[in-house]
Amino acid sequence: MAEEVMNNKQIILKHYVEGYPKESDMEFKNNNIKLNVPDGSNVVVLKNLYLSCDPYMRSRMSKLEGSYVQSFTPGSHITGCGVAKVLESGDSNFQEGDLVWGMTGWEEYSIVTATQSALFKIHDKNVPLSYYTGILGMPGITAYVGFYEVCSPKKGETVFVSSASGAVGQLVGQFAKMLGCYVVGSAGTKQKVDMLKSKFGFDEAFNYKEEQDLDAALKRHFSDGIDIYFDNVGGKMFDAVLLNMKLHGRIAMCGMISQYNLKKTEGVHNLLCLIAKRICMKGFIVSDHFHLYPKYLEMIIPQIKGGNIVYVEDIAEGLENAPKALVGLFYGRNVGKQVVMVSRE
Amino acid sequence: MAEEVMNNKQIILKHYVEGYPKESDMEFKNNNIKLNVPDGSNVVVLKNLYLSCDPYMRSRMSKLEGSYVQSFTPGSHITGCGVAKVLESGDSNFQEGDLVWGMTGWEEYSIVTATQSALFKIHDKNVPLSYYTGILGMPGITAYVGFYEVCSPKKGETVFVSSASGAVGQLVGQFAKMLGCYVVGSAGTKQKVDMLKSKFGFDEAFNYKEEQDLDAALKRHFSDGIDIYFDNVGGKMFDAVLLNMKLHGRIAMCGMISQYNLKKTEGVHNLLCLIAKRICMKGFIVSDHFHLYPKYLEMIIPQIKGGNIVYVEDIAEGLENAPKALVGLFYGRNVGKQVVMVSRE
Repeated sequence: MAEEVMNNKQIILKHYVEGYPKESDMEFKNNNIKLNVPDGSNVVVLKNLYLSCDPYMRSRMSKLEGSYVQSFTPGSHITGCGVAKVLESGDSNFQEGDLVWGMTGWEEYSIVTATQSALFKIHDKNVPLSYYTGILGMPGITAYVGFYEVCSPKKGETVFVSSASGAVGQLVGQFAKMLGCYVVGSAGTKQKVDMLKSKFGFDEAFNYKEEQDLDAALKRHFSDGIDIYFDNVGGKMFDAVLLNMKLHGRIAMCGMISQYNLKKTEGVHNLLCLIAKRICMKGFIVSDHFHLYPKYLEMIIPQIKGGNIVYVEDIAEGLENAPKALVGLFYGRNVGKQVVMVSRE
Repeated sequence: MAEEVMNNKQIILKHYVEGYPKESDMEFKNNNIKLNVPDGSNVVVLKNLYLSCDPYMRSRMSKLEGSYVQSFTPGSHITGCGVAKVLESGDSNFQEGDLVWGMTGWEEYSIVTATQSALFKIHDKNVPLSYYTGILGMPGITAYVGFYEVCSPKKGETVFVSSASGAVGQLVGQFAKMLGCYVVGSAGTKQKVDMLKSKFGFDEAFNYKEEQDLDAALKRHFSDGIDIYFDNVGGKMFDAVLLNMKLHGRIAMCGMISQYNLKKTEGVHNLLCLIAKRICMKGFIVSDHFHLYPKYLEMIIPQIKGGNIVYVEDIAEGLENAPKALVGLFYGRNVGKQVVMVSRE
């Protein structure tokens, strides 16, 4: 096959990041790429359509040792979850024209292996394709597994979700409402707080940035305490929640966006509550649970089509805007799941 | 029945305590008690034999609100677990001469109700009676439930126990060895560290007070990480352990003796490890698991009689020495389970 050399715009990480990431830590650069599968290779050539901005990516911008994720390589392009179209495939499981989601590059075209990228073929296209970066992708399974498997929820229980308008939080809240729980969420702007109640059906919501005393805010909404805390933020909020958990409560530790940009994480002081209240607290990583993806899709797609579950995305147009979109996550600038549109097929 | 008024020496809590408790926070006092069961009452009159000094009692010396235990009442006698002989009983489940263990007073004689005191009748007397404050009492079930139920241990796993020569720790270590685990313990003196290896069969042990860097000490003993941490201390040790847990590790949160005397508990900074390593962390309270007591006795008594499990006690002689014994716990002065002998039947 003839070599097809193409321009390939990329987002390069310039150097390891300390503190809050800045757009200038990344560079929008033009490189070339050979868009073909070498003889005997099992790689898949992708045209990237949508890229996902996820909080965990912050840790990959630092020099990591012994973490469950690998550092990005300074001087190379950023990688992350995305939706793409297969241009050519050396892997018999994928064919030209297939739509897929999985780990890909922050670039126009990527050459990946299906196993390393954990590529999933997209079968149902009667939903926005970008949803496969969110509700139908990693954040979706994260919310599903975290709530149903890690939290062992029961009808009528009280549920608190932090970062509740984000990709995962908005789903956890809706799952909890579907089950008949009382659900409260926290977010960082009035717009988001309003959305939690009006759009996602949370029973109550509050703006954590406007609360002098998070313990008091939680007590206002949970006079009898919290059965389930779905933690996306860590830090001070986590500490305040500990004071408000009920006996035999459960905490799913999904992420700690409040801590990722700190040189030294905040100290948590109320762990003694875990003993007194017999709390079970579990950290989890979605990739351990990918086997549940087909079961999840079976549940969620009819809910989306039936309008029972809604999903809010914040789509940045164009790869050149990806650095700004990613940085914005850590300032809470996104309203809903932050996506970058690279190309519409 | 004629009223029998007796002298009743008691240990009185003089006032709520801040910081480390002192002997002078308590008072050895002589009171009178009427040693009879009023008509129609279901109380049980006890002669106290052995009293248990337990770390959780520190919290009862403070003014508590909404805790799972109640504050002691300043001006009144201290209460705690103990072994006693029934002198008279209005409760048909107990008879004069019965030996029992449960919640009793720090005094020579106590009048209790069996349900409030969670009184257990002692059937097997071919073991030291004091053991019913320890290996055959609350610390014993604590170790049993905490290790077997909370930690879900498997043969060959690596186990770390802090405060390992204490009432609970020495048992957890021996249970883990019985199951075929690799077990390391920490304690605060050379004598205790030696005892962990020579007497209780721990594979390794270290003196946490002599370690500049707890993380390094743990890495020395667990080159591949820790599957199970049985936490009796909290604080800095807990934080260092988080860095050394293996994937899918389990942490049983049994107590935090390092924190009980602090005005503000130490901050824990490494909770992000719980996510990355998918750790399950559970707090537990032994009283939730008392239904397992008969099953536990069935297991443990033959092990004691067969010499497979050993148990080390530190017995203070005489009620007047109880305050010193209790205070000593928080300075690690006890070697093994701290007991106070009030009377030998």
